[in-house]
Amino acid sequence: MERTGSPAEVRSLGIGMLGYAFMGKAHANGYRKLSYMTWPPPLRPRLVVIAGRDEAAVSEAASRFGFERAVTDWHDLVADPDVELLDNGGPNSLHAEPTIAAARAGKHVICEKPLGRTADEAFEIWRETAAAGVVHMCAFNYRFVPAVRLARELVEAGELGDLLHFRARYLQDWGDTDADVWRFDASQAGSGALGDLGAHAIDLGRYLVGEVRSVQGLVRTFAPGREVDDAVEAVVEFDGGAVGTIEATRFALGRRNALQWELNGTKASLAFDMERLNELELFRAGDDRTAGFRRVLVTDPGHPFIEHWWPPGHIIGWGETFVHELHHLLRAIAGGEPVRPHGADFEDGYRAAEVCDAILRSSESGRRVDVDYRTLA
Amino acid sequence: MERTGSPAEVRSLGIGMLGYAFMGKAHANGYRKLSYMTWPPPLRPRLVVIAGRDEAAVSEAASRFGFERAVTDWHDLVADPDVELLDNGGPNSLHAEPTIAAARAGKHVICEKPLGRTADEAFEIWRETAAAGVVHMCAFNYRFVPAVRLARELVEAGELGDLLHFRARYLQDWGDTDADVWRFDASQAGSGALGDLGAHAIDLGRYLVGEVRSVQGLVRTFAPGREVDDAVEAVVEFDGGAVGTIEATRFALGRRNALQWELNGTKASLAFDMERLNELELFRAGDDRTAGFRRVLVTDPGHPFIEHWWPPGHIIGWGETFVHELHHLLRAIAGGEPVRPHGADFEDGYRAAEVCDAILRSSESGRRVDVDYRTLA
Amino acid sequence: MERTGSPAEVRSLGIGMLGYAFMGKAHANGYRKLSYMTWPPPLRPRLVVIAGRDEAAVSEAASRFGFERAVTDWHDLVADPDVELLDNGGPNSLHAEPTIAAARAGKHVICEKPLGRTADEAFEIWRETAAAGVVHMCAFNYRFVPAVRLARELVEAGELGDLLHFRARYLQDWGDTDADVWRFDASQAGSGALGDLGAHAIDLGRYLVGEVRSVQGLVRTFAPGREVDDAVEAVVEFDGGAVGTIEATRFALGRRNALQWELNGTKASLAFDMERLNELELFRAGDDRTAGFRRVLVTDPGHPFIEHWWPPGHIIGWGETFVHELHHLLRAIAGGEPVRPHGADFEDGYRAAEVCDAILRSSESGRRVDVDYRTLA
Amino acid sequence: MERTGSPAEVRSLGIGMLGYAFMGKAHANGYRKLSYMTWPPPLRPRLVVIAGRDEAAVSEAASRFGFERAVTDWHDLVADPDVELLDNGGPNSLHAEPTIAAARAGKHVICEKPLGRTADEAFEIWRETAAAGVVHMCAFNYRFVPAVRLARELVEAGELGDLLHFRARYLQDWGDTDADVWRFDASQAGSGALGDLGAHAIDLGRYLVGEVRSVQGLVRTFAPGREVDDAVEAVVEFDGGAVGTIEATRFALGRRNALQWELNGTKASLAFDMERLNELELFRAGDDRTAGFRRVLVTDPGHPFIEHWWPPGHIIGWGETFVHELHHLLRAIAGGEPVRPHGADFEDGYRAAEVCDAILRSSESGRRVDVDYRTLA
Repeated sequence: MERTGSPAEVRSLGIGMLGYAFMGKAHANGYRKLSYMTWPPPLRPRLVVIAGRDEAAVSEAASRFGFERAVTDWHDLVADPDVELLDNGGPNSLHAEPTIAAARAGKHVICEKPLGRTADEAFEIWRETAAAGVVHMCAFNYRFVPAVRLARELVEAGELGDLLHFRARYLQDWGDTDADVWRFDASQAGSGALGDLGAHAIDLGRYLVGEVRSVQGLVRTFAPGREVDDAVEAVVEFDGGAVGTIEATRFALGRRNALQWELNGTKASLAFDMERLNELELFRAGDDRTAGFRRVLVTDPGHPFIEHWWPPGHIIGWGETFVHELHHLLRAIAGGEPVRPHGADFEDGYRAAEVCDAILRSSESGRRVDVDYRTLA
Repeated sequence: MERTGSPAEVRSLGIGMLGYAFMGKAHANGYRKLSYMTWPPPLRPRLVVIAGRDEAAVSEAASRFGFERAVTDWHDLVADPDVELLDNGGPNSLHAEPTIAAARAGKHVICEKPLGRTADEAFEIWRETAAAGVVHMCAFNYRFVPAVRLARELVEAGELGDLLHFRARYLQDWGDTDADVWRFDASQAGSGALGDLGAHAIDLGRYLVGEVRSVQGLVRTFAPGREVDDAVEAVVEFDGGAVGTIEATRFALGRRNALQWELNGTKASLAFDMERLNELELFRAGDDRTAGFRRVLVTDPGHPFIEHWWPPGHIIGWGETFVHELHHLLRAIAGGEPVRPHGADFEDGYRAAEVCDAILRSSESGRRVDVDYRTLA
Repeated sequence: MERTGSPAEVRSLGIGMLGYAFMGKAHANGYRKLSYMTWPPPLRPRLVVIAGRDEAAVSEAASRFGFERAVTDWHDLVADPDVELLDNGGPNSLHAEPTIAAARAGKHVICEKPLGRTADEAFEIWRETAAAGVVHMCAFNYRFVPAVRLARELVEAGELGDLLHFRARYLQDWGDTDADVWRFDASQAGSGALGDLGAHAIDLGRYLVGEVRSVQGLVRTFAPGREVDDAVEAVVEFDGGAVGTIEATRFALGRRNALQWELNGTKASLAFDMERLNELELFRAGDDRTAGFRRVLVTDPGHPFIEHWWPPGHIIGWGETFVHELHHLLRAIAGGEPVRPHGADFEDGYRAAEVCDAILRSSESGRRVDVDYRTLA
Repeated sequence: MERTGSPAEVRSLGIGMLGYAFMGKAHANGYRKLSYMTWPPPLRPRLVVIAGRDEAAVSEAASRFGFERAVTDWHDLVADPDVELLDNGGPNSLHAEPTIAAARAGKHVICEKPLGRTADEAFEIWRETAAAGVVHMCAFNYRFVPAVRLARELVEAGELGDLLHFRARYLQDWGDTDADVWRFDASQAGSGALGDLGAHAIDLGRYLVGEVRSVQGLVRTFAPGREVDDAVEAVVEFDGGAVGTIEATRFALGRRNALQWELNGTKASLAFDMERLNELELFRAGDDRTAGFRRVLVTDPGHPFIEHWWPPGHIIGWGETFVHELHHLLRAIAGGEPVRPHGADFEDGYRAAEVCDAILRSSESGRRVDVDYRTLA
């Protein structure tokens, strides 16, 4: 481990990571970067072990990202006494078992979204983990975009007034491929665009507006022979009365990573696009002759998370959301600010899954579905 | 009447206009302007008579816009032998009776949207008018935005490939008012944002994508005591397989006249915003390292309707859509290019109304509704 | 003349127009449209006579735009007792002589920009016209864009604080052509991009910031054999201390009509692009966490000129600037609000020409040139 | 040092860093991040020593960023045998002496811009360093923005045709402050906005267009009593015939870090804004009815530097430019691709300084100044 990287008095936290692909890279970068960019860090992440099925690849990943050791069986990771936190970035089918095992072993857990392939699976993960009494987090990293956090703060401060509309769409365009990726395999992924992209939009709706009360949905698969949905369209109704739409697709040419949402209240409106994640658009009623949507470049000293970064206008990237997210998690583990409400915990992961399932049922039946959320006994 | 304004050999067409408010102003400006901007015009509009209930106001309007006479009873307009075309821009409750009477009297008719307050009423207007054998047009003027026409031409030329998604929203923000306008009166307006704004989005969907097959909808009234809907949210499915959303609201702060839509095909995507109506955004697959949404400023010589206007980059306004629309109508009456497919006729007006009604039924029942279109015997 | 179009008590004003091409069309449309869109108009424009050298073309133009008669010799126009206002939209070489002749004949005059081909010629036009005691206006129509007027009002109200920077560029892209247009002929045009485009940028600088004190300039001709400049680049210094740049070119591919400017003050900044002429961007200091450039859609009831047009968000076009400009002129002739300061008169036309000449001298000598303005004795 | 972080066969390179503030943080992050994000890295950066005058602060920085030791006298850094590369991010007044000393000691050097406070000083640094035969780089990090590199590649491939115009402005808005920063101290900084911001714009002009041939400039100080310039305005002429403007200011309210440039060629145009650094705007002639500026989101697999990062649309931040820059430097030191032409070396640093000095002389004399570049004997 690094000799330096944090003050002597900050204790370390042993990390065991499951998965070394896209999310593994993003999370590993997050741990390394937060060690010096958020200073002093709440805990010093110690990269203990990384697990993956391909021995050569996982060894390479360990070497690259600085893990002390690599294993090919995640049970070894869970059994490792140096591991205090499981970071689960594996395929969706590997969310439940390792996460629950780690929690039972007394390890804190962060798990990528969607938490489970179904609401039932997600609920089970939540139930078991909560019972274990460890800190748990579902990696809805878009809550940690400075502009999204600022939006939430504006909503909480009442600056939008009553919320009337939320329309969100998460558009990507890589669906037209023959690639054999686990995201197209129903048994590994659960769903397609719904769980992969739609879940993010749902989580932001829950974070910014409130609980989803009902859905009317339609899912569609465009690619012949594909097992999972390529697109989802839904009308949603929130507790509190706001109504809107949630859409997700892998077939919107030209939209590379366009998680776009707009929120209309009785006093102000907000709009956002992940492809320009440093910007929040805000319209305020009452600005008279100079009313207009303003492009707030969320890089000023007073903006969320910016204390860690650069001077105004020096924008940050998508990868930085993980620095914020993992910093938040480490703070929660260290006994500081809890995961909720600004982070998503496993209850949030479960609730998003419940909305996803409701959309699938509505698509099937054609009926509006009131979303029923289970609670822990 | 004007001595000049068109060549001697172009015959005139007597116009009788019902309504002198917002749409009256827009249409009157259209007739006057097309007389010299589209040169030579297909017919010389002769502004014969304008009808309205307030005698002082309608006289003032006649004087202002150059009508030969003003009447307070629309029956006088319909009975006027000099009137060859009824232009009906009155409240929705005045669409059916005068339009049908004029058609029966052998006059051509153009009627503002929504054609009827219900699908039944719209069907009746269509049925009676078609039986009369006159030219009929439903004033969906947004088909006459150059960027929209260009979009249609690109779709027709196959440049988008198969169509997968259409998402449209028509957002305005004047709903929070105590003003006693006919648009809030159910008996006069039929519906609220649905027929006023949603109908435009539906018509553009039909124009660009194809017939609407099914809807799942939700309408909502925010203003206490208001009779009509303030907002509508819907999932739509088109013949051909495209899916998407249609939304309309009068409660989206900061969106003054934001009819925004996006169309994703297998080969290209298009996006549009009425607040920047001179621009069409286009993304083409296969542009390699320089792929990107391009902002086409639809003001070049080869662009639709631009022959009538200015050099490139000298943008046109919303009012010009009526010049194009009425020019199209006059050409149809003169025996040139027919109203369809680029204009909407009363069948299109009826079909949009059928979709509106289906959304209302779906909102009520919570069920997906397959849209059934009636045809003339 | 039209029987209707304005109230009986509004007297008419006889218009004689020189030129029937681009500017002729724009001005003719302006007169016709203001007759009913600005209601009641200050004076009823009576389109008496239009002059041009090509007999067939000028007759066609008379018929199209509704002039009572057409002539091929502008002296006939000036001699016509029914003409009370000369509207001079001819080539630059036809600005001086007819304008001065008309003024001497007691007619009011509006002349297209640049007022003269040189500062000397412009001064002479101003001197003679002022001596004649008629109303005079130089057709800098971009002062009549609602967003530009709003900008001026914000500056006047002190909302920008002290002005520090003005950077303006007028970019077009049609320069790479073999077309034999008078704009490339030095004897007819005087200069190229400088007088055609740069003059507009200079006039807006004078309107928004103040008098130009010094220039450092460079002109360049890209097209082989062309007599006039294709591009001009200049550093400018204003009375009051603001500094900035003014650029104009006909060789900026993709910029169709991009008159873009930005103004930075100690309290706020403004930015504008003629291709989106309904929008003004405004940044205000002191907006704290929500500071940002706001896109003001200048179409609200309280915005300049909008009383004549449509509801919010229903944008206007480039052609409408002439409606505002000519309405302003007619009001001045009718004895209402004078041409200055919101319109440009011949002194403004002369002063812009003086800045243009200074840029040419600086380009030649390589030296900073202090601009010297002559005054009338 | 880290046990992992790069393969065993990659040799390490000892880094000595001068300065721990803004640039120190940016460079330290660059070294740490490239160790695993560019994989395998060309050399393993070993963070040996960091130098700064404030003992507590420099010790804290060493601890934070993982340097083995901290020193308060830069001579100790230069004398350190473990240091193989001096990274000089100190104030401008500390560029010359330590850089030359390090080069003479056989160490490679990277120095922040502006290379010297004057062209003479920059020339001296270049001359001495080149004589020492070490690798040298001037840290113009904006060459390492993916969109900028793509622009350069498009220019090199001839896709723009002949270059006609380059207009660049670097706008910030923090100038209105009483803070006592070294950037306002003439002896430490040399110049103000000119060397700090203008130098970047000049370097990009040189990188994208070619050598600057002449300048006409004006500098201005707005803040009372300030020693250095707050703003610079200049007309520039390039070898090859392109003309344009270069501006820089610390007084453009709302422009936080707006390095904006536009390049017009005979076949295409490009536009860029650092506040949206992941985007390059491109207009191509010949796209017919669908010509338009396209927003290329420079995050695709085939785009420069993106191999190190995330999937398409997952944007990168300003900080990443240093990862690219230092990776480039390490590759050059390792004997791979040389610093030039994609990186700036000390000759580039000197030449930018020569342009800056020419602007100052032009501002003083009011005359166009032809830039004379010295060469090494």
